[in-house]
Parts: sequence; structure tokens; C-alpha cells
Amino acid sequence: MYQPKDSSKSPRFTGPRTFMRLEHIERTDNVDFVVMGVPFDTAASNRTGQRYGPQHIRDFSVLLRPYNPDQDINIFDYCSGVDYGDVDVIPGNIHRTYDNIVNALEPVLDKEIIPVIMGGDHSISLGHLRAFAKKYGPIALVHFDSHGDTWDNYFGEKYMHGTPFRRAVEEGLIDVDHSIQVGMRGPLYGPEDIEDARELGYEVIPMKEVREIGYDKVIERIHARAGDRPVFVTYDIDFLDPAYAPGTGTPEVGGPTSYEGLEYVRGLHGLDIKGFDLVEVLPTYDSGEITAVAASSIIFEMISLIAMKKRAQQEENK
Amino acid sequence: MYQPKDSSKSPRFTGPRTFMRLEHIERTDNVDFVVMGVPFDTAASNRTGQRYGPQHIRDFSVLLRPYNPDQDINIFDYCSGVDYGDVDVIPGNIHRTYDNIVNALEPVLDKEIIPVIMGGDHSISLGHLRAFAKKYGPIALVHFDSHGDTWDNYFGEKYMHGTPFRRAVEEGLIDVDHSIQVGMRGPLYGPEDIEDARELGYEVIPMKEVREIGYDKVIERIHARAGDRPVFVTYDIDFLDPAYAPGTGTPEVGGPTSYEGLEYVRGLHGLDIKGFDLVEVLPTYDSGEITAVAASSIIFEMISLIAMKKRAQQEENK
Amino acid sequence: MYQPKDSSKSPRFTGPRTFMRLEHIERTDNVDFVVMGVPFDTAASNRTGQRYGPQHIRDFSVLLRPYNPDQDINIFDYCSGVDYGDVDVIPGNIHRTYDNIVNALEPVLDKEIIPVIMGGDHSISLGHLRAFAKKYGPIALVHFDSHGDTWDNYFGEKYMHGTPFRRAVEEGLIDVDHSIQVGMRGPLYGPEDIEDARELGYEVIPMKEVREIGYDKVIERIHARAGDRPVFVTYDIDFLDPAYAPGTGTPEVGGPTSYEGLEYVRGLHGLDIKGFDLVEVLPTYDSGEITAVAASSIIFEMISLIAMKKRAQQEENK
Amino acid sequence: MYQPKDSSKSPRFTGPRTFMRLEHIERTDNVDFVVMGVPFDTAASNRTGQRYGPQHIRDFSVLLRPYNPDQDINIFDYCSGVDYGDVDVIPGNIHRTYDNIVNALEPVLDKEIIPVIMGGDHSISLGHLRAFAKKYGPIALVHFDSHGDTWDNYFGEKYMHGTPFRRAVEEGLIDVDHSIQVGMRGPLYGPEDIEDARELGYEVIPMKEVREIGYDKVIERIHARAGDRPVFVTYDIDFLDPAYAPGTGTPEVGGPTSYEGLEYVRGLHGLDIKGFDLVEVLPTYDSGEITAVAASSIIFEMISLIAMKKRAQQEENK
Amino acid sequence: MYQPKDSSKSPRFTGPRTFMRLEHIERTDNVDFVVMGVPFDTAASNRTGQRYGPQHIRDFSVLLRPYNPDQDINIFDYCSGVDYGDVDVIPGNIHRTYDNIVNALEPVLDKEIIPVIMGGDHSISLGHLRAFAKKYGPIALVHFDSHGDTWDNYFGEKYMHGTPFRRAVEEGLIDVDHSIQVGMRGPLYGPEDIEDARELGYEVIPMKEVREIGYDKVIERIHARAGDRPVFVTYDIDFLDPAYAPGTGTPEVGGPTSYEGLEYVRGLHGLDIKGFDLVEVLPTYDSGEITAVAASSIIFEMISLIAMKKRAQQEENK
Amino acid sequence: MYQPKDSSKSPRFTGPRTFMRLEHIERTDNVDFVVMGVPFDTAASNRTGQRYGPQHIRDFSVLLRPYNPDQDINIFDYCSGVDYGDVDVIPGNIHRTYDNIVNALEPVLDKEIIPVIMGGDHSISLGHLRAFAKKYGPIALVHFDSHGDTWDNYFGEKYMHGTPFRRAVEEGLIDVDHSIQVGMRGPLYGPEDIEDARELGYEVIPMKEVREIGYDKVIERIHARAGDRPVFVTYDIDFLDPAYAPGTGTPEVGGPTSYEGLEYVRGLHGLDIKGFDLVEVLPTYDSGEITAVAASSIIFEMISLIAMKKRAQQEENK
Repeated sequence: MYQPKDSSKSPRFTGPRTFMRLEHIERTDNVDFVVMGVPFDTAASNRTGQRYGPQHIRDFSVLLRPYNPDQDINIFDYCSGVDYGDVDVIPGNIHRTYDNIVNALEPVLDKEIIPVIMGGDHSISLGHLRAFAKKYGPIALVHFDSHGDTWDNYFGEKYMHGTPFRRAVEEGLIDVDHSIQVGMRGPLYGPEDIEDARELGYEVIPMKEVREIGYDKVIERIHARAGDRPVFVTYDIDFLDPAYAPGTGTPEVGGPTSYEGLEYVRGLHGLDIKGFDLVEVLPTYDSGEITAVAASSIIFEMISLIAMKKRAQQEENK
Repeated sequence: MYQPKDSSKSPRFTGPRTFMRLEHIERTDNVDFVVMGVPFDTAASNRTGQRYGPQHIRDFSVLLRPYNPDQDINIFDYCSGVDYGDVDVIPGNIHRTYDNIVNALEPVLDKEIIPVIMGGDHSISLGHLRAFAKKYGPIALVHFDSHGDTWDNYFGEKYMHGTPFRRAVEEGLIDVDHSIQVGMRGPLYGPEDIEDARELGYEVIPMKEVREIGYDKVIERIHARAGDRPVFVTYDIDFLDPAYAPGTGTPEVGGPTSYEGLEYVRGLHGLDIKGFDLVEVLPTYDSGEITAVAASSIIFEMISLIAMKKRAQQEENK
Repeated sequence: MYQPKDSSKSPRFTGPRTFMRLEHIERTDNVDFVVMGVPFDTAASNRTGQRYGPQHIRDFSVLLRPYNPDQDINIFDYCSGVDYGDVDVIPGNIHRTYDNIVNALEPVLDKEIIPVIMGGDHSISLGHLRAFAKKYGPIALVHFDSHGDTWDNYFGEKYMHGTPFRRAVEEGLIDVDHSIQVGMRGPLYGPEDIEDARELGYEVIPMKEVREIGYDKVIERIHARAGDRPVFVTYDIDFLDPAYAPGTGTPEVGGPTSYEGLEYVRGLHGLDIKGFDLVEVLPTYDSGEITAVAASSIIFEMISLIAMKKRAQQEENK
Repeated sequence: MYQPKDSSKSPRFTGPRTFMRLEHIERTDNVDFVVMGVPFDTAASNRTGQRYGPQHIRDFSVLLRPYNPDQDINIFDYCSGVDYGDVDVIPGNIHRTYDNIVNALEPVLDKEIIPVIMGGDHSISLGHLRAFAKKYGPIALVHFDSHGDTWDNYFGEKYMHGTPFRRAVEEGLIDVDHSIQVGMRGPLYGPEDIEDARELGYEVIPMKEVREIGYDKVIERIHARAGDRPVFVTYDIDFLDPAYAPGTGTPEVGGPTSYEGLEYVRGLHGLDIKGFDLVEVLPTYDSGEITAVAASSIIFEMISLIAMKKRAQQEENK
Repeated sequence: MYQPKDSSKSPRFTGPRTFMRLEHIERTDNVDFVVMGVPFDTAASNRTGQRYGPQHIRDFSVLLRPYNPDQDINIFDYCSGVDYGDVDVIPGNIHRTYDNIVNALEPVLDKEIIPVIMGGDHSISLGHLRAFAKKYGPIALVHFDSHGDTWDNYFGEKYMHGTPFRRAVEEGLIDVDHSIQVGMRGPLYGPEDIEDARELGYEVIPMKEVREIGYDKVIERIHARAGDRPVFVTYDIDFLDPAYAPGTGTPEVGGPTSYEGLEYVRGLHGLDIKGFDLVEVLPTYDSGEITAVAASSIIFEMISLIAMKKRAQQEENK
Repeated sequence: MYQPKDSSKSPRFTGPRTFMRLEHIERTDNVDFVVMGVPFDTAASNRTGQRYGPQHIRDFSVLLRPYNPDQDINIFDYCSGVDYGDVDVIPGNIHRTYDNIVNALEPVLDKEIIPVIMGGDHSISLGHLRAFAKKYGPIALVHFDSHGDTWDNYFGEKYMHGTPFRRAVEEGLIDVDHSIQVGMRGPLYGPEDIEDARELGYEVIPMKEVREIGYDKVIERIHARAGDRPVFVTYDIDFLDPAYAPGTGTPEVGGPTSYEGLEYVRGLHGLDIKGFDLVEVLPTYDSGEITAVAASSIIFEMISLIAMKKRAQQEENK
């Protein structure tokens, strides 16, 4: 049973920083979830430095405690988890990096462990989806982001951080009829930028519509869309408003607060989530660590969902 | 026809930074709008460094794309625009700077091009208003700010960043009966600070009242006030709450979010706007470039208004 | 009669920084309130550097003007105040520091002057409460914070920034039946973290409940709880959301905006407040001085309350 | 007798920051030196923000202790000194600021107190020289800087931070035959930039020559030049190499280390120095406070010179 | 004849930043040198963000004036130059980027214009060398750096910022018998890291030897080595000590000061230099812009060399 | 055999940061040296935050490679080492922290493993010395610092970061006749500050004397002093000049460069060193990570000494 180091005995600022003070160990026995990093930023079209995202999140995450009062659950009453370290990315080579991601996830998914993956630019999700599709078949995607990332290419390049969710459809990794994108906003190249995603099969709720229909309705639509399919949740930190997450590559005004950003994760309870990623944290713009606070908290809610699912299963089995 | 450099061909981080990757050229032929800077900060009463505001906005603005989904318009379907560079301000000499502003604006206004001016401290607006009044006669002012900037003087100095809208009335540059100020808040020297503006003839909606009456009512009152007069819009970035715009000279708690800040610009559609300024961006306090995101986005909405007016005119003319 | 230096004569950026440009003088004659610092951070369990909090607040506070438009009062029409400087804390020795706090407050409280104390980590409040209890007997506590700070110990240490409000009950300094905590949120060690505070006798309104019942109801409950007892107000800057107050030791997502944070202070009008503290400002994480703006404004509202009470008393006495 | 607050009793980080923890008081009785600020930056031709220089130096200077081991002197065995606060500069109006400087210095110079003035941009030295010339007649200037600041004008403006030492000659404030400039370097508009200074009468030792002839020879030439005349020392922090003083307006590669920068001050012992200034400290570029360390230390050496002169006088009088 | 904008007429902080305020124009007529950027950082093995290097250098370079007192030359008496903008790099695709570099340089080299190229990570030099070799045949390399960058691969990747000077030899781009590397230092994987470079044919003067033999001897050996061959100079900013250039990807203690760093460029006068690059400037670590000062100054010296060569040619031709 | 992770296989920016990418493991078998942190800053008299020092050094240290060209040794040809993590310090309680330090060091020293300890404020060295004295008896101290840290107390407190080397003498932990302090400089409280150390028995070479006698002589005196006694080396990062180490608590102008700072460590080869510490790294002032580069490199040289001693022993044993 793996749980965080006891912060009532050793101060939280001691020792090499792992996520939430979990043990850093590549192990899949007796583990319910792993937190792992994919520090890759080769596919960023503008600001770069997302390779430092995972460690930046770890650095702040040592402040997290195990009990989630909003969900009334102590994660480690139900789960065992480790910091699995980072995938050996190959800076400059996205294809070999994808292979390494798939290889790294394979033993984890084999044991039906839930990975919570810290990016890295958003291109890495294509790697994650390849691994998940291999295990679970085409998977329902729940996607929070200010951009749909379904562009075809940049400068002729097909594998960039704005293209993974087109590639994933093309590669058949996604159960697109049960997939949904939430939060798109900001200047675009044209109206087709949103329509393209719909033509690919995604349900899209742009931020403007989110504001109109409200949180409850959005959550309802996500559940209706994903149903009981296996789900992968991808969360781009730029889903949040820049005041709550300045440390990212392509910030867009008009997003949710960090509180709302957590609520969207909490609202996913009940879905059959097989994995998560949280991407595009870029420390060099994260003055005051505002983004690190938000990112750590979002991952904390993701892990809480894992624990809640476990609890629900245990209660069912009684 | 001038439009931004194609970012699908050259990455947005290449080349000297101009606003939105528009061509940097001092030209008035075939141009509908110009973005220009007035990097002046001699008249700042407290923090200084606003002279770096225009370039700071340019630096971030390269991320802007041409299509505005909230207004459903591609700016460059209707408009041609350039980055006109900066006015040759004279640091330390506000009067010669005013002359240079007026001289720089003259050929632009002559052709009824809409300038979008990046400050600089708020004193520069007096220069803008002189130029606009010369062309259009006294102009209706729509003013978003946390301060009314109608003080008489500081330390005996009449031309400071807190005095331009008193001077403008005194000089007869403003059609004050159709002018309105929105957002005033924060500690003052006395209740007269607001009353003075009203006595000068302005309609004033302090932030407290903004919160009470709500956005729709504020927009309604702005339209009622300005009517069909030629309008100049002046927007002090400190209208926004400091969490959304820390990079400014005199931040005041309790302002709108950046999303709301954009909505106020969007709400101006239908007014006969002849020019805009956005002032008081101060990069040295803009950690994480939060303010640059907001400022770029506000200017993007201003330019969108120009395009929407063009579209409306074209539709009328059909 | 002590009031701020006249900023229409000397620019606000001149001279050694005192709070609000008040005179720095250790005097208790003809003084209604004192602003003082307790630059202590030995008891911080994670981030440190709160010792620089008081000066950081002073640095920004020179921008404050005397008239509060939200409360329609010019502070110095009713009050005289000084910057009393800082208590001579003993870094590394909390017990001697407590003694020095008590000794420093004694002459101030003797004259029924209202102190507004800038921290420092939250452990200092135990010192404040010792001094206030000595003067006023057990005092009603109104406590805004994201943490209840009623833990028993850290690593066996009883006097830490997370324990003062347990110690204060144990020492009989607090009239706990009239005391209330507002805003608790974020990951905990267990559900008992909140329940413990209730068992100690505090009324606790966690943030989740604050969101449910709303501002008016919270203020109503505070007034109902404190009644007409002498009150000490303690305000941890981490009560605010990290976007509005990144510069603090243990930020927690999901707090109020800075505007709301001021409203809670305004809502205390009518209570018999004997003193205030504002703690946990940590400048090294306060990029862009966002936190300094908030902290200065909160203290400004605290002082406004003092003035309003004076005005009310004067009106009664007429 | 005024001396710094005792840091063995109260920590150096307590209380409003004054220079070296000296009392902040505008007093000329029983005072041998005053440290004062002139927070003016209107005349800066490029980067601005020097108005925050004096407080930035004060902030760090609290670390200074009274005994100078290199000169083997405890300053306060021979001197009494205060932090005289800042001159009420008029941002945007250099002429009224000059008047205020002269008025502020008059009572100080009347009593033959030695002022040590913290800038501010270098334009302020013209104000200082006007005051000193009024008291002492044309004064010998010893000038350390990477620029000669003898340009005629910028954009037609005669009173800028690059022109004071031409203006001073024109106004007859300087005993130019006994004046000397040391350290000039970096790209210029032309060879005349240096020659002009020589034509005005200054002896000039550009940095290149400093490197050739060495420290001892430079000091020798300064003493030979200034002789026994009354001297004013002006020290632009950009005399130092940017690695040792990044926080300044126009840094130039190739200057002395901060150690060497102190040595030049130490080498002035024996001159009849009537006053000092240290200018162009610009905090917004002073990451890590490297410049503040250097500036504080330079002023410490200036004050040490004052004490050494006193000691020498006392020894003579025995 | 292209020369910088006149800073005595318009302040240096006005207008979009180009190198040294030169006109931004892609032109090869009447041009002696071009400054251009290659904002590529895909091949960085550790820190990333070098793509912002060229603009960072431009931002500071506006302070450069045209006359070089150390070399007694006004650049624009002999040369015409422009800011040629940036090569359209392809982030994530080094091979297409190399092609774009070669294509961009071709028209420049065709006219025997001297390019001064701002990086970007060091991998870009391979692109430069391909272009130069195409024009001039194998070229002599003069290389200042703390690393030899002759590794074979990283993680199996052959085109990284630590491998270009092995690839260049393999591709026959370099006249290795006349090539020399200066400044190598810092921890290595093994002694072979230096020996490998020698086996490839380079003369190598590690920093340790530089310190032993001194500047004059180093310059002598460079001249002896390169002789009268056409030369390409590549300068990694991490050649400088980290105190003088913190803003870089792999800083190594123990390098030259920035003054010495300029001297090495000055010492190259007399070589037949066909082009220069200055690489690895990484703004996100360049607090206080220390590195920008150094980098701008180094490029200024490179351009001065071009002017000096022109002057020498003109004098010969008389 | 423990050695760093292979950076030719996984990029250096992957995984939780440990020193030099060594395995994080608390193990004493087959280990020659351990790197460990003591993140304590309760005893800092001025700036605080040294508790983040160890992790800050780890963060940068991943760039270190195993071969030291200046000493011509590959560390891991001779040594096995691990990152032992941090001692569980007790913030606010120096005495319990000392106990924990002693307890943590005991099993390490028992096996004659050489610890290299990262601080933390300098008070921690007293803990180290207690542990070493217990194992080795009174030990010879070689101490590099800008302060002697032999004050008696601060504000009556005996255990502060300026007092450990008086306490150590009083407790009989040091073989003071073979101990030496190097580098003292900067303003003091009086001449006795240096003399006191001499009276305690230390040999002291203040920086002024270091400059006079030069490096070789200093090293000679260190060797003469320490002889063949067991030695503990304590290195305060403020020994370096602030330009090379801004990130520290009490920087003093006039210290060595970082290159010289390494040379002093290299010069210790031949001493019988039993342990090292490097203290007072304070990340919040370490803009650009200049200090992290220096600190990592110094520790690298310390570890190189361990390897060289091993090599010498092996050669002897042949």
C-alpha cells in the first residue's frame, strides 16, 4: 500500500519532490493509480518550456493533503498510488517519444492501473490515446481546453500540439461518437476551426455556450455523451482563465476560474475513466506559482475520482 | 490590402514583433485601421515604465488569430490594417509630445482611418482628443477606468495622467453631454473626486453602481448617452481587476474580470467610433504576461468592432 | 492629529515607506489606531519569508487615499493614526516573540487604541490574543482563512502557524462561544480537521457552505455569533483565491475574489472590534504585487471600520 | 548623536526601511552627514523607474554594519548621521524639481553637513551642483560613469540624464580645470562624444585607458586633478559592469567589478569632499538585488570617507 | 545605404524592436551585412526557449550607438546593414529547418553580404555551415564555446545542439585543418569528449589552457590556424561565465567576463570572415537582461569587424 | 555501485530531481559518499528561505556530468554515491533539528561514508560538527565564508546562523588549533568581530589578506594548518561575490569569482576530509539560477575530491 510521506513527521519541504510526496518508484504491484510525467515540448507552436511542467507540478504538490473535503473522501483509504517518474521522451523526435509513451503505459494499463499523466505540450495525448486504444479499443474522450486541437497541420507538420485530436480520430483511437470537447474560445483562423471538430464527430461546447447553458447542463451533456464507455480525460490547463493559469503556452481570456475548473473534474464522477492527462503547464510564465496551485489541485481531484470509484465498487461489493 | 503574416507558414514567434503580425509601415493608403503606440510615461504620478507598454502588447499579440468567434467575424474579410509604429514621444516634455501625437494622427484621421492607440500613461489621451476634435469637432467620450482622471493638478502640475479629462473639457475637445465614465472605484481624496467629474458634465457610473445595475444596463446607458455622435473610446487597463491586469500603474481592487472587460468593448457595437486608445499597460509589473493577454484581447475586440461596422456598412450598401 | 502625508504635495513614491504614508512614530497620545508589523515567520510549516510581509504591504500602501467611497467616509475626519513600526520579533524563538508582542501591545491597548497588525505567519495571532485577553478578557474571534489553524502540533511542535486557535482556546484567551471561522477549504488530513474546530467550540462556515448560503447569510451569522462582545478580527490573506493573493504560504484554490474579500470586512460594521490582524503575506511569491494590492485594501477597509465606529459614536453623542 | 538602530536588539528586517537603519528625520543639528533621496526619473532617455532607486537602496542597506574593516573605522565613532528622506521631486517637471533640490540642500549645506544623495536619473546632479556652487562656488567634480553625460540635447531637450555635465559647465557650477571623468566606454554616436567633454575642460580617463594605466595611476590622477579644491563626487552605478549592477538604465559591458568600484571610492580619501551622489539605480532590472548590494556598499564607503576625514581632523586638532 | 534610425530624433524605446534600430527589410541590394534570427530550439537537450533569443537580443540592442570607441570606427561610415528578420524555422523539424536556413542564406551569400545570425540553439550552425560551404567550399571554423558540440548523438538522435560540429565534419562542410575551438570546460562524460574533437581534426584550446597561455597567445593561435582561409565564426553565449550570461541553456562556471568575451571578437580582426553566428541566448533565464547586454555587445563587435574590413579594403584601394 | 542515471538515454530534465541524477535512497551499503540536504532556515537573522536551498541545488545539478576535466577524473570510476534525501528538520526548533541531524549522520559516518551536506542556513553546521566529533573527535575545520560566524548571540539567542563556530569551540567539537577561516569581509560591528575568532583559536585570513597573499599562499596555509588531521569543510555560498552568488542571505561585495571559488575546493586535495557542507543557498534571490550553477559546481568539486582520495588510496594499495 503506497501513500504519501507523513507530513506531520517530516516537513513537506524536505526531500526530492515527488507528486504529493508519494514514493518515486516504477512499480505496478499493489498500485491503483500512478502519477507520471511526459516532459515533452517539441510540438509547441509558440511558447516552449512545457518539458518543465511535470516537475513544476510536483514541486507545489507536496502541499496536498490526503482528505478531500468537497468529496468527503480520504484518497488513501481506498487507493494505493506512486509517482512513476517521467517517460523517457526524446526531445526533437515526436515519433520515438510516442513509442516510448506507449511502451511506458503498457505495463500500467495491463494491470488496469489508472495513470494520471502530467504534460508536456498537448501533442503527447496522441501517445496516451494510442496506448489506451491498444488496451481498451477506441475510447471516449472528455476534453477540457480553450482550443479544440483538431487542426490538420502547422507549417506542413502533422504532429503538433494543435493537431492530436484530429490524428486520433484518423488513427481510430477515439470513440468519437461518445467524445466531447468543452471550453473552446479565443481568436481563431476561421469559423471552420470549431466546425471541423464537429465534422470529425466531436460534440463541442464552446465557452460561449458553456456560459449560456451553465455548469450543470454541461456536466449533464458530458455524461450523456460518454455514457458507460471507457473514458480518457484530457485537460489542458489553458482551459482556465489566464488569471488562474498564466503559466501555459497559449493563454486565452475568458475561461473558468480555478474553482470552476475543479468543479468540472468533480462533475465527472460516475464515468468509467481509465486515465487522465493534464497538459501545457509552462513554469517560466508561472510567476507566483498560481498555475502550479491550480494544476496540483486538478490532479488531486482526478485522483479523488479514482478513489470514489473504488469506494463505490467496494460498497457495491458489500 | 494589409493583413497579418500567415502563421500557418511562419511560426508566430518569428520576426520583429508587430501588433498581430501586421506589417510595420507608416502608410494610409488602402488602410482601414492602424495600430500605433504612444510610449510616453512622463506624466505618471506613481509607478513609471508605461513607455514599454506598446511593445509589451505587441510581443504577446502575435498570438492573435484573425477570426473572432464571439462576434462571428474575420476581421480581414472587411478591413485592411497596419502597425503604424510609435509616435516620436519626447520623454520629459508633454507639450512637445502632444504636438507630435497630433501631427502623427492628422494624416490618419484625414483619411478617416480608425486608429487604435496603445499607451503610455493616460495623459496621452489629451493629445488624442486634440487630434480628434480637430477632425471631428468635440467628440463623445466613452471611458472605462477605475479612476475618472479629472483631477485638476498634482503638485501644481496640470498635465498629468490623472488630469486629461478635465483638461479636455476645458479645451472644448469633448462633447461632454454625450460622454460617460464607467468603473470608478478605490480610495479617493474625497467624495468630490467623483462629483467633480459630474460637475464637468460627465455621466459617471462608478463600479459600485456597475455592480448594482449590471452589464446590460451599463451598455444601455452608454448607448443612450453617446447616441449617434462620433465617439472616442478610452480604456485604461486598470479598469480590470488587478488579478487580471497586474501590470499597470495604479491598480484598484474590485474591477471586472478580463472576460467582462472584453464584453464591455463588444457592447459598444453600433456606436460611431472614430478611434480607440488602451493605456497604462506597465510591463515591469506584468509577471506571467497576464496583462498582455488581456490588453491584446481588448484591442482585438476593438478592431473587431471596426470590422463589424464595415460589414454593417457593406450590408447596408447592398 | 496624525494623518497621511499630503500626496498632492509630495509624490507617493517619496520617502521611506510607512503604511499609507502615516508618520512612523511610537506614540499613543492622540492616536485612535496604529498600524504595526510583526515580521515573524519562524512558525511557518512550509514556505517562509512572511517576515517581509509588513514592509511589502507598506510599500504598496502609499497608494491609498483617505476617502472610502464604498463606505462614504474620510478616515481622517474621524481618526488619527500612525505607523507604529514593527514589534522586535526574535527570529527562531516564538516564546520570546510572544512576550515582545504582548509588551508592545500593552501601552496601545491601555489607551484603547485599535491596533491593525500586519504579519508575519499566523502563529503571531496567539501573541495578539494574549494581549487582548489581558485587557479585555476572553474575546470573540472573527476569523477569515482557508485553514482553521486548530491543529494540535506539527512534528510535535505546539506553536506553529497552524495551531494558534487551538492554543488560544486552551489558554482561555477566546470567548469561543461567540467566535466563528469562515472560509475553510482545500485538502485536509481528514474530516476531523474541521470537526476539531467545532469541538473546540468554534462555529465554522467552510467555503463550500459559504458558497451555498451566500455573503449576506454569512455576515448575518457572524453578527449573530459575535453579538456585542469585544471582537478580534484575524484575516489570513490565503482566505482569498490564489489568483488574487498568490503571495502567501499555503494557497488554496477556490477562495473569494479580492472584491469579496473586502466586502467581508465591510460587513463587520457594527461589531465592537478591538483589534485586527492581517497575516501570511509572503512577498517572494507576490509577482506583480497582486497580493500587496489586496492586503493594503483589506487593511484600508479595517481602518475604515474604525472610522465608522467613531462616526457612529460621535453621532450618538450629539 | 544619531546612529543606526541596534541590530543586536531588533532584527534588521524590522520597521520601515531607512538607510542603514538610521533615524528618518529632517534635522540638521548635531548631524555630520545626511543620506537623502532624489527619486526623479523624468529625464531618462531609455529605461525608466529610477524613482524607485532610493527606496531600493534603503531596503538592502539595513544589512550594513557600522565598522568598515577595509578602512579600519567605525563610522559612528566619528560621525552622526540621519536618513533625511527624499526631496519632493515633481515628476514631469525637471525645473521645479531642480528648485526643490536646491531648496532641500540649502539648510544642509549651510551647516556644512555632507549630503550623500541617492538618485534618481543622472539629470539630478545638475540640481546638486547648483546647490553646491551656491555654497562653495564652482566645485571640482570627480565623476565615475560609463558615459560622460556631456551631450548637448536629446530630441531637442536640453535637460536630460545625458546632459547635466555640459549644462553645469555652461552654468559655471563646476571648477572644470580640476574636474575629471573616469570610466567612459561603450558604443557612442561618434568620437566627438568623448572629445566634447575634453573641450568643455574635463580631464577624461575612458575605461580603455583605465585598463591600461591601472587603478593606482587613476587615483593619482584624480588627486592631482582635484587637489585641495572642494569636491563633489558623482557616481553613476553603470560605472560598474552589468554583471555587478544590472539594475540600471543604460548598462555597458566592460566595467569594473563591484570590488573595484568600492576601491575607487576608498581611493578618494584625502580629497576635500563636500558631497556625493550615487545615481541611476533602477530596481525593476535588479533581479536578485545584485545592484542594491553594490549601491549600498558604495554609499557605505562614501560615508566611511566622511568619518575618516573627521578622524583625521580630530587627530590634527589633538 | 541602410543605417539605424536616428535616436537623437526618436527615442530608442519607440517602434517595433529591430536589431540596433536597423530597418526590418528582406533586401540584398546595397547591403553589406544583414542581422537575422534563427529562432529554433527543438534540438536543445536540456533547457528550452532559445526560440525567443533573437527577439530578446533585438529588444536590448536598440541601445547600441554606431561608433565603436575601442576600434575607433563608426560602422555606418563603411557599411550598410539591415535587420533581415527571422528564418521561417519549423519547430519540431530540424531537417526542414535546415533547408529553410540554407534557402534563406543563399541570396545573401550570393551577393557576398556578411550575415550575422542570432540563434536559436547551437544545432542551427549546421544549417549555416551548409549554406556557407555551398558558397565558399569547406570553411575554417572559429568556435567560442564552453562545449565542443562534437558529440555523436543524444538518445540516438544525431541532430541535436551538442552534435553540429561532428556532423559538419562528416558532411565535409568544414576545413577542419584550419578550424579551432576555444573555451571548453565543465563536467564531461569522459576525457574523450575533448579528444574526440581533436580526432575529428579540430585544434582545441580548453578553458584551462586559455587561462594558462593567456589572451594574446590564444588570438595568435586562432590567426595561425585560420590563416587566410574564409572563416565562419560561431559564438555560443555560454562561452561567457554564467555571471555574465545567465540566460543560456547549459551554463558552465569558469568562463571569461563579458569584457574578455568582446576582446576575443576584437582579436579576430584580419581574418577573412564570411559570416557569424551567436547562439544559445535563452531569455527566460536572463533576469535583469544581463545576457542581452552581452549578446548585443558581441554582435556589435562582430559588425565592427565587418566595417573594419571594409575600411581596410578601401584604404588598400586608395 | 550507485551512479547517476544515464543522460544519454533519458534526458536530464526527466524525473524527480535528485542530486546529479543519483538514486534517491537512504542506503549505506556499497556507498562512498552521500549527498543530503538539511533544509533548515529558522536561525537566519535576515533573509529567510534557505530551506529551499537543497532542492534548488538538486534542480540544477541534473546538468552535471561525471568526468571532471580539471582534475582528470571520472568520479564513478572510483566512487559509488546516492542522494540520501533530506534530514527531517523541525522548523522553529533548532535543538530538535540538531538531534535529527546527528541521528541522520550517525549511520553514514559509522560506515565512514563521506557526506556532502546541502543547507540550509549556516547554523546547521553545528549539528554536523556534533556528529563528526562523536565519530572522529574534535575535527579540523576548513571554513570558506564572508563571515566568521563566531558571534556570541543575536538578540540574546545563542543558536543562530552567525554563531555556530563559537558554539562549536565551546562544545569542544573542533580541533581549533588546526582550523582556519578564509574570506571574511564586509561591514562589521567592530574590529573585534575578526579578533574574536582569533581569540577562539582560529587562524583567520580575511578577504583583504587573501587578495594580498594570493591563492597559492592561502592554499598552502590551509594545508599547513589542517595537516593530516581529519577535516570538515564548511563552505558558505556567500564566500563568492554576489555577482556569482546572488541567491544567499547576507551577500557581501568583494568576494571571489565562482571560478576562484572552485579552485579553493580543488586546492584541498590531499587533506583528510571526512565531510563537507555547502550552506546558505537561498533560491528566492537566485534569479537566472546563477547561484545554483555555482553551488552545483562546488559540490561537484567536493565529490571529485572524494574520488581523487579513493584513487590515491587505490594507487597506494597497488
